[in-house]
Amino acid sequence: MAQVLYDFTAEPGNNELTVKEGETVTITNQNIGGGWIEAQNSRGEVGLVPEDYIEVRECGDDFSISSLSHPASNGNDPWSVWNTDPSGGSNNNWASNPEGTQTGKNAPDPWGSHGHPQAYQGPAEDDEWDDDWDDMKSTGGYVESESGDSGAMQRGGAHATSMKISLNKFPGFSKSGPELYLLCKQFAKGKDKLPIYTGEVGPVWSYPESQLDCIVHFHTNTVNHRYKHFDWLYERLLDKFGSAIPIPSLPDKQVTGRFEEEFIKMRMERLQGWMTRMCRHPVVSSSEVFQLFLTYKDEKDWKMGKRKAEKDETVGVMIFSTIEPEAPDLDLIEVEQKCDQFSRFTKAMDDGVKEILTVGHEHWKRCTGPLPKEYQRIGKAFQNLSTVFTSSGYQGESTLTDALTAAGKTYEDIAQMVAEQPKKDLHFLMETNNEYKGLLGCFPDTIGVHKAAIDKVKEADKLVATSKIAPQDKVTMGKRASTMSYALQAEMNHFHSNRIYDYNRVMQLYLEEQVKFYETIAAKLRQAHSQFTTM
Amino acid sequence: MAQVLYDFTAEPGNNELTVKEGETVTITNQNIGGGWIEAQNSRGEVGLVPEDYIEVRECGDDFSISSLSHPASNGNDPWSVWNTDPSGGSNNNWASNPEGTQTGKNAPDPWGSHGHPQAYQGPAEDDEWDDDWDDMKSTGGYVESESGDSGAMQRGGAHATSMKISLNKFPGFSKSGPELYLLCKQFAKGKDKLPIYTGEVGPVWSYPESQLDCIVHFHTNTVNHRYKHFDWLYERLLDKFGSAIPIPSLPDKQVTGRFEEEFIKMRMERLQGWMTRMCRHPVVSSSEVFQLFLTYKDEKDWKMGKRKAEKDETVGVMIFSTIEPEAPDLDLIEVEQKCDQFSRFTKAMDDGVKEILTVGHEHWKRCTGPLPKEYQRIGKAFQNLSTVFTSSGYQGESTLTDALTAAGKTYEDIAQMVAEQPKKDLHFLMETNNEYKGLLGCFPDTIGVHKAAIDKVKEADKLVATSKIAPQDKVTMGKRASTMSYALQAEMNHFHSNRIYDYNRVMQLYLEEQVKFYETIAAKLRQAHSQFTTM
Repeated sequence: MAQVLYDFTAEPGNNELTVKEGETVTITNQNIGGGWIEAQNSRGEVGLVPEDYIEVRECGDDFSISSLSHPASNGNDPWSVWNTDPSGGSNNNWASNPEGTQTGKNAPDPWGSHGHPQAYQGPAEDDEWDDDWDDMKSTGGYVESESGDSGAMQRGGAHATSMKISLNKFPGFSKSGPELYLLCKQFAKGKDKLPIYTGEVGPVWSYPESQLDCIVHFHTNTVNHRYKHFDWLYERLLDKFGSAIPIPSLPDKQVTGRFEEEFIKMRMERLQGWMTRMCRHPVVSSSEVFQLFLTYKDEKDWKMGKRKAEKDETVGVMIFSTIEPEAPDLDLIEVEQKCDQFSRFTKAMDDGVKEILTVGHEHWKRCTGPLPKEYQRIGKAFQNLSTVFTSSGYQGESTLTDALTAAGKTYEDIAQMVAEQPKKDLHFLMETNNEYKGLLGCFPDTIGVHKAAIDKVKEADKLVATSKIAPQDKVTMGKRASTMSYALQAEMNHFHSNRIYDYNRVMQLYLEEQVKFYETIAAKLRQAHSQFTTM
Repeated sequence: MAQVLYDFTAEPGNNELTVKEGETVTITNQNIGGGWIEAQNSRGEVGLVPEDYIEVRECGDDFSISSLSHPASNGNDPWSVWNTDPSGGSNNNWASNPEGTQTGKNAPDPWGSHGHPQAYQGPAEDDEWDDDWDDMKSTGGYVESESGDSGAMQRGGAHATSMKISLNKFPGFSKSGPELYLLCKQFAKGKDKLPIYTGEVGPVWSYPESQLDCIVHFHTNTVNHRYKHFDWLYERLLDKFGSAIPIPSLPDKQVTGRFEEEFIKMRMERLQGWMTRMCRHPVVSSSEVFQLFLTYKDEKDWKMGKRKAEKDETVGVMIFSTIEPEAPDLDLIEVEQKCDQFSRFTKAMDDGVKEILTVGHEHWKRCTGPLPKEYQRIGKAFQNLSTVFTSSGYQGESTLTDALTAAGKTYEDIAQMVAEQPKKDLHFLMETNNEYKGLLGCFPDTIGVHKAAIDKVKEADKLVATSKIAPQDKVTMGKRASTMSYALQAEMNHFHSNRIYDYNRVMQLYLEEQVKFYETIAAKLRQAHSQFTTM
């Protein structure tokens, strides 16, 4: 049994359940992931509801419900159009695209049903589930330029649901908003601090000497409960860092019926991508909870660390209490300018990324659908004419008929090449953009916290006047807003450097494969051409 | 006013007029060409009717109605399915394909409405018409291998209507069937004879030392009536040689509204193709009427030759009376076998050619329609993302954004290349096959004459028994059937050698251009790839 905290109206066709604040529902499945749980109302209707909308009295050890809370994106937040994005850029639109299911066996449409509960096909059985996961080894001394090759290809992970969570955050202002930090009298002592230095590009996190890398091994023959641990890690990281650092959600648990292998493969790829990105983040990768996840030795070890991590009180906005910029305080105008600039950029990039995903998806469908069929028909037509010519009974026919048959076979080869190419290049371009779409989906929350803090600081005078706070508190609030701004700037600079690296990588890979593709076709056709005689 | 000779049922949507035998109609336009005239019935309905179905009382000097007559293809003639060919290979199907009109300005759909009256848009005014034609020079000493280059590309001319005419030949057996020749007592004296030699490949026409070539010059600024002369020549050649040699009909007169320039250009190309093919034919090119057409000096010269040619009595099946095989007579079984073999082959090739035309047309539409649009959108998406990145305010961004913009522009270039490619290669593949479709459409008649002759010879015993003919006549009939067979074999061998030449040429051209196309794309992409930095 659980209490509904806020009204939620179901999107039609998404297995969702409309609930009203104060209503009591029965949790029928907590293990759906992506920020959703399955609930049944008093009328016996079952459907999906955002976790944050429901106060779960008791929750299983294996899946902790996030209680991270911070201000909602205000009304005029442009991002709030996402749920009904008409651009076709959202996974929802792909999923609801009938053509998406016409792409044939060797033409999976992997973006067709990801990142949204409508792909959900009933509760995921642990056993069905855990088959896919095995333990995972961590290796130190990772050098980015080395791992980059695989790095750029093994990204993935975040997707539409992350946006959904953030958008469905409860309206209005929560008691645990930024003022919890801004007005906190006393920070907990002895926490490991997060310094921010001033680098060439401005404020930067302190990066570890050697960056972590982590390869996730999958053995479908061993059964364990590792995915729950990933889920737990995600919730903890979101809880602890979400106000300052976008934490992309994990790849979806559920798999649609068709192309199951492809989706499992892609989910593994995306989980690897998620881990790689977490390892690349200086703050996340060096955090105690992440280290525990990578290094615990046995069940006892794990249980202990788990309990400790869940007791951690430096969560939500309080993360900022551990941040120590080395630079002088910024005035509020500058803080606000930075915040707006990041908000504009992330929104614009989100649009750009979605455009590429939409166009790329269209291209994927054409390359795996009608185009190869057409080349095949061209090839068949040449070969059929060749067969007719062979029957002419005219002598000196064979040179032409052999050449014509070869040309026909060449176009059949080309048909197959065309159908298989997207897996070799477009796939990685799509995955990288898909991951960035997920990452960008986290920014509205992160930026929202800062916007709310700025608003609070603006209210400070009024609060002093009405003696809700002491004059000294106002100064403190300004300082802390400045600290939050440094954190945001450090995170943006981290994001930019990763983005430049990732897009250079993936574009190089894409164009490299495209060049190979067209050169191979040209070579095959030159070979076919050489068989016709010049008379 | 004119009398309807046979029932004709209009095909829906083709501007045709249903008429009944014996009905009287008014000719509203005789200058439509392609074997059609426009007529109005007593109920005032106007539409197109095959010329041969109507007996025109008086006909202008400028357009002579063919009175060539010979047996119809018998009931079980497979070719008679042509009019309702479902394969989509017929121009009709193309024309009626709505997509055919979606191919945009720089993407004409030239096969979309050719070779069928449904492209007809009102009577073609002579002036509108003759603008396109000018006089024509003939040059001797043409060497095939030299002209081949342009030759293979300037074919065209014959098309669906020729089939339509031949198929609509009146049913039943005409008085001027093959027996006119088979049982003719006395051949006209002093006619120039057509020897048939035995070459490596079997019976062959005697080829002139130097083959004719003829370039048709078009000056749109001078007005004359040359097209009528072409029309006259076509009718004369059909009249004189049609029983022994397939004479493809001329390119259509009428032009559809859209892409007028493209169609005029193509019609010129096809008229050139028609002339080139006539020049390549040893019997046609050396005939008196053809020579007259190429060489007359002035109007008087022309009128004289014209009158003489129209008096020529060696027309229809009587052409065989001028044919002199050097080889011994063939027995009827062999004659029949050859005839059946040619019938099978030409039918099979007709199917093969239509398949290529259908597939090629589909490909043409894709390459000029959706495909370039898609590459353009990919290019735009890259450039838009580049613009977003430029706005990041992060330093060291420019290398990536410049490269990304260049990559985007490259895909826009590729879009244009894709859209323009069909004009460079597919066009000639289509034209060659289109010309062969027209040529093959003439064979049922040519072969039909031989089938009818064979049947007659089979009847010979009965005719002798019923003393309808003398025993000696039966021997003569056999000899003459053998002569007809030699003529058919010589013509088939001529067809085969031309076919092998033409298809080698056009396939070479096609593949050559395809190789260039893919190599250029690969080079552009390699250039774009080089602009991304490896970090």
